[in-house]
Amino acid sequence: MIIIGEKLNSTLKSVRSAMKNYDSDTILDIAKKQYDAGASYLDVNAGMFLEEEPERLEWLINTIQEEIDVPFSIDTPNPKAILKGLKANKNGKPIINSITNEKERFNAIMPLAVEYKTGIIALCMDDSGMPETVDERLSVAESLIEKLTREGVPIEDIYIDPMVRPIGTGSHYGVAAIETIRNVKLEFPNVHIACGLSNISYGLPARKIMNQVFLIAAMAAGMDGAILDPLDKRLMTYLYAAEALLGRDEFCMEYLTKYRNGELEI
Amino acid sequence: MIIIGEKLNSTLKSVRSAMKNYDSDTILDIAKKQYDAGASYLDVNAGMFLEEEPERLEWLINTIQEEIDVPFSIDTPNPKAILKGLKANKNGKPIINSITNEKERFNAIMPLAVEYKTGIIALCMDDSGMPETVDERLSVAESLIEKLTREGVPIEDIYIDPMVRPIGTGSHYGVAAIETIRNVKLEFPNVHIACGLSNISYGLPARKIMNQVFLIAAMAAGMDGAILDPLDKRLMTYLYAAEALLGRDEFCMEYLTKYRNGELEI
Repeated sequence: MIIIGEKLNSTLKSVRSAMKNYDSDTILDIAKKQYDAGASYLDVNAGMFLEEEPERLEWLINTIQEEIDVPFSIDTPNPKAILKGLKANKNGKPIINSITNEKERFNAIMPLAVEYKTGIIALCMDDSGMPETVDERLSVAESLIEKLTREGVPIEDIYIDPMVRPIGTGSHYGVAAIETIRNVKLEFPNVHIACGLSNISYGLPARKIMNQVFLIAAMAAGMDGAILDPLDKRLMTYLYAAEALLGRDEFCMEYLTKYRNGELEI
Repeated sequence: MIIIGEKLNSTLKSVRSAMKNYDSDTILDIAKKQYDAGASYLDVNAGMFLEEEPERLEWLINTIQEEIDVPFSIDTPNPKAILKGLKANKNGKPIINSITNEKERFNAIMPLAVEYKTGIIALCMDDSGMPETVDERLSVAESLIEKLTREGVPIEDIYIDPMVRPIGTGSHYGVAAIETIRNVKLEFPNVHIACGLSNISYGLPARKIMNQVFLIAAMAAGMDGAILDPLDKRLMTYLYAAEALLGRDEFCMEYLTKYRNGELEI
């Protein structure tokens, strides 16, 4: 499972404050904890700093990579910030988070993915707005995969995000996301799937429960990546259990090891 | 979701002891609690009483139906015990738990389902033994559905059990069960699926976690019934969350109501 640690995000007050004060200790602490908890990538987001975003993102990346060797997920739709991040990056192959099939955004971000040979998260959205149905999502995913691979992005570098919408606003949005994942993986077995979990539960109480349930159902449909909080021990427990259930953990060895090491919340 | 409450089972020491002593208060207490927790059926099993099984089962059914009006799942492969149970039953349409495609068992139990117009749980197993693959399970399921409907059992009265085997003994058994469920529902949309959850985690630590994960993944694949402990509040919380996620709970109303009533373990 490709785990993209979501905590270094300027929308979180404590992170924003640490970034504002160039408090590298706090940033490094969050980065290390996520890495130790199993993050394959660290998502970095400086969007709240508006016109200062590129420099703040650069500082964030430099601060982390001085101490920790874990690749980044550069989380912004702003091409200037992405470029600054890519130029600063020394931690191996990053992921750009994210491109969409909106014409302007696609044309601005795609060349950066090609030039810097990055991974890229591709959101199932285009200029007609947010998708409703599985078919709408699939058609955007197909178009994105076709266009990105035509430009030279290897399919293994593409992470489709089905565009998760809150089930509180539409009872069909859970099935829409899950069936999009299943169908994309059927059509393109080598593409990755990576999506944020928490949108699914927006507006509901006990959001963590719903996020856990969505994680499991999405993994069962073929999701092999997620943007999540790796410090959420219960969520990670379900993730490891799902890996074992789905035959992605031979002889349940990882699950059993985590259990023995007290890393599961049971 | 069709919830078959599993607790009135003579393999459980406290239940066996209560049955032995004709302790109707204890039996009724367990029955009522399961019913109040949302059981659609109460599974009743007296198998541990061997040659006394039919009479013990009859007593169990009579004891419960004197006070509670909830249909039974008559849990035995013994045709004599099934017949005794069916004759005693006054609580509406029961389920026979279970038939298989083993020739002798099929021929002994099928006529009872036909004569008494019961529901019937059909296990994906035949005289060649326990199935390994999805294809083996599917082929047994198809044969059972074909033979039962040919004898006049409506397809809506059939509950396919994919024959869950422990992932601790084979990493592929989780996927085998889940994909069997998905394929049976694709081929026969009107058939029900009902399986026991706990076999999946046999031999593993933290079994409840794995049972919860399996419940969610199986529901996402189309499982609409399960034999489980409705008094396990955490398991039921995940069940209701999964119903909401999968669009089977319009506007998440049931989930929200349960939350407000403090019925979720969060």
